[in-house]
Amino acid sequence: MAMMKAAALIAPGRIELVDKPIPDVGPNDALLRITTTTICGTDIHIFKGEYPVKSGLTIGHEPVGIIEKLGSNVQGYEEGQRVIAGAICPTFTSYPSQDGFPSQDGSWIKEDGTCSCHGYKATAGWRFGNWIDGTQAEYVLVPDAQANLAPVPDSLADEQVLMCPDIMSTGFVGAENANIKIGDFVAIFAQGPIGLCATAGARLRGASLIIAIDGNNDRLEVAKKMGAHVTLNFKEVDVVDEIMKLTKGRGVDSSIECLGLQSTWEQALRVLKPGGTLSSLGVYSEDVVIPINAFAAGLGDHTIKTALCPGGKERMRRLLNVIESGAVDLEPLVTHTRPLDDIVAAYDMFMNQEDGVLKIAIKP
Amino acid sequence: MAMMKAAALIAPGRIELVDKPIPDVGPNDALLRITTTTICGTDIHIFKGEYPVKSGLTIGHEPVGIIEKLGSNVQGYEEGQRVIAGAICPTFTSYPSQDGFPSQDGSWIKEDGTCSCHGYKATAGWRFGNWIDGTQAEYVLVPDAQANLAPVPDSLADEQVLMCPDIMSTGFVGAENANIKIGDFVAIFAQGPIGLCATAGARLRGASLIIAIDGNNDRLEVAKKMGAHVTLNFKEVDVVDEIMKLTKGRGVDSSIECLGLQSTWEQALRVLKPGGTLSSLGVYSEDVVIPINAFAAGLGDHTIKTALCPGGKERMRRLLNVIESGAVDLEPLVTHTRPLDDIVAAYDMFMNQEDGVLKIAIKP
Amino acid sequence: MAMMKAAALIAPGRIELVDKPIPDVGPNDALLRITTTTICGTDIHIFKGEYPVKSGLTIGHEPVGIIEKLGSNVQGYEEGQRVIAGAICPTFTSYPSQDGFPSQDGSWIKEDGTCSCHGYKATAGWRFGNWIDGTQAEYVLVPDAQANLAPVPDSLADEQVLMCPDIMSTGFVGAENANIKIGDFVAIFAQGPIGLCATAGARLRGASLIIAIDGNNDRLEVAKKMGAHVTLNFKEVDVVDEIMKLTKGRGVDSSIECLGLQSTWEQALRVLKPGGTLSSLGVYSEDVVIPINAFAAGLGDHTIKTALCPGGKERMRRLLNVIESGAVDLEPLVTHTRPLDDIVAAYDMFMNQEDGVLKIAIKP
Amino acid sequence: MAMMKAAALIAPGRIELVDKPIPDVGPNDALLRITTTTICGTDIHIFKGEYPVKSGLTIGHEPVGIIEKLGSNVQGYEEGQRVIAGAICPTFTSYPSQDGFPSQDGSWIKEDGTCSCHGYKATAGWRFGNWIDGTQAEYVLVPDAQANLAPVPDSLADEQVLMCPDIMSTGFVGAENANIKIGDFVAIFAQGPIGLCATAGARLRGASLIIAIDGNNDRLEVAKKMGAHVTLNFKEVDVVDEIMKLTKGRGVDSSIECLGLQSTWEQALRVLKPGGTLSSLGVYSEDVVIPINAFAAGLGDHTIKTALCPGGKERMRRLLNVIESGAVDLEPLVTHTRPLDDIVAAYDMFMNQEDGVLKIAIKP
Repeated sequence: MAMMKAAALIAPGRIELVDKPIPDVGPNDALLRITTTTICGTDIHIFKGEYPVKSGLTIGHEPVGIIEKLGSNVQGYEEGQRVIAGAICPTFTSYPSQDGFPSQDGSWIKEDGTCSCHGYKATAGWRFGNWIDGTQAEYVLVPDAQANLAPVPDSLADEQVLMCPDIMSTGFVGAENANIKIGDFVAIFAQGPIGLCATAGARLRGASLIIAIDGNNDRLEVAKKMGAHVTLNFKEVDVVDEIMKLTKGRGVDSSIECLGLQSTWEQALRVLKPGGTLSSLGVYSEDVVIPINAFAAGLGDHTIKTALCPGGKERMRRLLNVIESGAVDLEPLVTHTRPLDDIVAAYDMFMNQEDGVLKIAIKP
Repeated sequence: MAMMKAAALIAPGRIELVDKPIPDVGPNDALLRITTTTICGTDIHIFKGEYPVKSGLTIGHEPVGIIEKLGSNVQGYEEGQRVIAGAICPTFTSYPSQDGFPSQDGSWIKEDGTCSCHGYKATAGWRFGNWIDGTQAEYVLVPDAQANLAPVPDSLADEQVLMCPDIMSTGFVGAENANIKIGDFVAIFAQGPIGLCATAGARLRGASLIIAIDGNNDRLEVAKKMGAHVTLNFKEVDVVDEIMKLTKGRGVDSSIECLGLQSTWEQALRVLKPGGTLSSLGVYSEDVVIPINAFAAGLGDHTIKTALCPGGKERMRRLLNVIESGAVDLEPLVTHTRPLDDIVAAYDMFMNQEDGVLKIAIKP
Repeated sequence: MAMMKAAALIAPGRIELVDKPIPDVGPNDALLRITTTTICGTDIHIFKGEYPVKSGLTIGHEPVGIIEKLGSNVQGYEEGQRVIAGAICPTFTSYPSQDGFPSQDGSWIKEDGTCSCHGYKATAGWRFGNWIDGTQAEYVLVPDAQANLAPVPDSLADEQVLMCPDIMSTGFVGAENANIKIGDFVAIFAQGPIGLCATAGARLRGASLIIAIDGNNDRLEVAKKMGAHVTLNFKEVDVVDEIMKLTKGRGVDSSIECLGLQSTWEQALRVLKPGGTLSSLGVYSEDVVIPINAFAAGLGDHTIKTALCPGGKERMRRLLNVIESGAVDLEPLVTHTRPLDDIVAAYDMFMNQEDGVLKIAIKP
Repeated sequence: MAMMKAAALIAPGRIELVDKPIPDVGPNDALLRITTTTICGTDIHIFKGEYPVKSGLTIGHEPVGIIEKLGSNVQGYEEGQRVIAGAICPTFTSYPSQDGFPSQDGSWIKEDGTCSCHGYKATAGWRFGNWIDGTQAEYVLVPDAQANLAPVPDSLADEQVLMCPDIMSTGFVGAENANIKIGDFVAIFAQGPIGLCATAGARLRGASLIIAIDGNNDRLEVAKKMGAHVTLNFKEVDVVDEIMKLTKGRGVDSSIECLGLQSTWEQALRVLKPGGTLSSLGVYSEDVVIPINAFAAGLGDHTIKTALCPGGKERMRRLLNVIESGAVDLEPLVTHTRPLDDIVAAYDMFMNQEDGVLKIAIKP
């Protein structure tokens, strides 16, 4: 039995590089040899035990790789082809998928963790490193490959497309959910990798005033490159006051929350015009409070939207087109490169935000 | 100077029938002689001082009346014609109105209460009984009459159209914001006048399972007449459990909150499918909490929308069409009739929900 | 090899009941034993050779049946269960499906008619009786069964759900594409089975004036039962004049074309308000002309939408919910019943509209 | 009585600079002293008599000017302030405006040309140079000034904002109606001033492949500056073939027609993917034909949208924001400047497309 190396979560606080068999390929699957993957903020939640997964699972959900083997039903691809697959890897056949919510796809989950057709469970469309073995390994098995493999143009390097499976798709859906119209004012709270992609996405949708907020001036510099017109360091100014001044008392048309804290959520609400939209991307770890006076007592014609990263090959195709067209360049987000063998140290660096790290390319 | 009777708020807890001059008519105004008006739940908030207005203001915002006098610029109407006007009476010329939010129209408000063009303040489109003298009087002055007067067909009685200016428009926007698709499951929390109209609205949009919730069995009986397929008394069953059973674990596509309490808000979230919409109509008087587990940690593709009653003559025209077509009959909501002279006693009855009261027709 | 009877198109103008092998069941398939099917207007186009399919193909695309055998990958269903499947039977994994257009799903078509992943061809999502053997047979093979099988509640007879796979789904998407808002005026041109379902759909979406047009008074009587407020016989009145009078010169908010002729298309445009929507369901057999004066020279803020019947198990689930809730009863559309053995005579009756036929239930 | 110079249409083919009284200012009006205006393609239709207006009318509909006098009801502005107003100058109080179609606003038109409230007539929201005296004059009277005056930031020159009232608003609504999503392919037919603005608009909405088509290589060069990724000269290539190749047989997600000819309309349809959108901006002068095979017989899930330029101060505010943010620079479209005294010669130059003219700034 051929074996491979994989980063497994042994217990909260403990990830190890272990040996696992290279998976068998069923009729609807594809096996990828990973060429580049990365670590995500969500992996840190998993590492800390805040988002529990079963012991021994390979984690990671951002694959760039080469098709090693295709299932017998998967057509239109070739072994040896370079592809990506979304972090969220839906079946697309389930009720939720057909209802417009593939990221909430739950057709394959049963109470006992195996399989069923009628369940409908939040985040159920996310499989890599959540329900099945993930991408921080030498190989990964992509289920429902026909729906999820997206060919990468030869002209693009792994590092240029490494954000597509999760960070770019998530940041962009934040901008899409914000319902931005040409000429809108938008405030984007937190400028980590996802916030930076939300900033790029808001620019792509035609916002004419993008205000990026963070406490780290280096990240605010990157935000300008991604399209922010104004940056605010919350350690230096009162963010709500400043935004109301910048918009002459009007408030912003939409705000995008990219962190998951009560403070950013609340500021995101307070700067909204009546009729404005809060697009939330944060992963919250506690109850969230809506202050009554930031909510016009429920009479302000407000909209709040949350999202889980969209996946599937059509989404990936579109994001790859954006990269290929040159409209957005996300390679600067890849600040470091490490071999898979150093994955444990890479988690440390990423978790502690050492050395100005934004994203680390992991190479098996 | 000709005088009229009007119900004025003297101080919190004290409404009196006073004499006021019949207003002068400016070029863009119309003067209506009120034939029927009513008391709203919002008036009770004002009466209690929870929603402050200036002392001496005539309250009430639901006019049915006869055009007594038209301003020189108002065209296409005739004196003697019977009309209604929406509770929310926007200018429609302001930035917020042109931006799609006429109920948040604030073009005419200044900090000192007079007038300005660039302010943008929540609920600012609501004028009767809020910023200007209201409808619980013998006469009311309608500003921006060209945009706000809607002729009533002769075939309809005052009582049939009395809900259009507020209750019907608000309940219906709750159903509209719920983004109902044919075949949806919808849960509607609280079956007072607005909740009953939301139930009728959900039926009009094609929901195939409407679950109406209240603690009063009489109101639940009316809910069935308005189109509810199932009613639940929260005093008798665990509402969340029951809805999950009725939907076979799927949850509802949308829920409509029609009360403004943490408990109904929270239940409305807990019964949503991933990807579902909470349409909120309640007037909240405290901070609102979103429980983390009812929110999928922010990853559930949820939508929350709030609303203030839509106004304007086009909205009124459409609601009148619905009444005239016979699709919805709201006359049963008018359970009592009182002369304007008895307005103080009518407030008592309405506030204490005596005698099975839903709405009281007030006749000057 | 087990054999079955099937209605095959031998050549234009010639359908015969032939013997074919009962199909083998692949891992993603399901074999249904048909209990009831029917003949569609599209089958008549095929019969006449106006819409060509390959010789020998079994036609028909509206299945009600019992699961005889399930493929090894299909989960959550049981053999012996009664189900329907949409006339349009998409893979849901293709680019067009993920892009929001499953009825245009073309992932499985190659130029040579076999298979590919990147093609994108109109109507390619329609497989039964178009690309693969259809439902006018003792058995039918459902591809991508996980995405397409919809269980039928025991309480509903075959005749009650026989319209779901095509006629009801098509008529309803006509109403959905018409973008109907509460209080809208809607004109529906032609009241055959699809037009009657569009009428029912418009009522479900809250139109307050539905004007149904046809040349057959019997069908106009059925239109009233389906929800039309007014009916017009185009042989008796000038339809455009009459609609402009009924709407007091305003025109309708939307019109739904359900036939596919220049005359109905053109009238549907002429009665639209500026800003109105034409939702087209007709299958046209010639070029279509937009008269310049019905189009405001291109300056009228008009919308035109076309559609192919939506399919998939989620769509079927919703339509079954509508039937089960009692909101719409389509059983009256089934005017006749014939055994499969009499299919050739049934085509004659249906094509010539004999004996007041609307739809014929075919029973193998 | 103070007099001014104005360019009046005397008869088809004959425009003259005449003397007219400076208009009186009613309570809801504003009088502007024009500093810069321009000639539009629509003016050429009027000049040729293809779009008839009454003899003696001052034409032109693109005003940049200084407030000379404000009506007594108009608040929040100051005399001496520099403003623009949209070519389309709606009341915003009418039924069509409140229904979402201010450009079709017809509240003020009667059969006899005076005034009414219930009419609903296409293009009725367009007043300058259509129903009332226009902007090619020393002064223009802006009706419903409260809804239509938009202050110009001091930092912007007249030439930078001269496209806002019509060309930019029209080109952008073409992109908005095209329903562009991030990563879309878009084809834009004709690169005159409106087509160039549609190209800029498509870029602002996140299209990743914009194909601009024209027969003039100079205009195609400008198209690249406006954001086109690829340009095609229809005199040199088969446009439909080329677009299908560029999109690998997929077709474009949307096409924008900016001319008004059968040939461009038809090509715009032929290059659409199934499910695609044709956004039409052209002013057509003949019936338009939809070829059956470009329309999938009505089964292609296509959308066609037409538009008239959006107006109002909120629209102008947003367009001014875009200019001020630097996202789009339209000053290169102003290729020539002429005094009002030379207006007749300027019409000749513009009509004959002499000297590479795109737009001419006219200075009274």
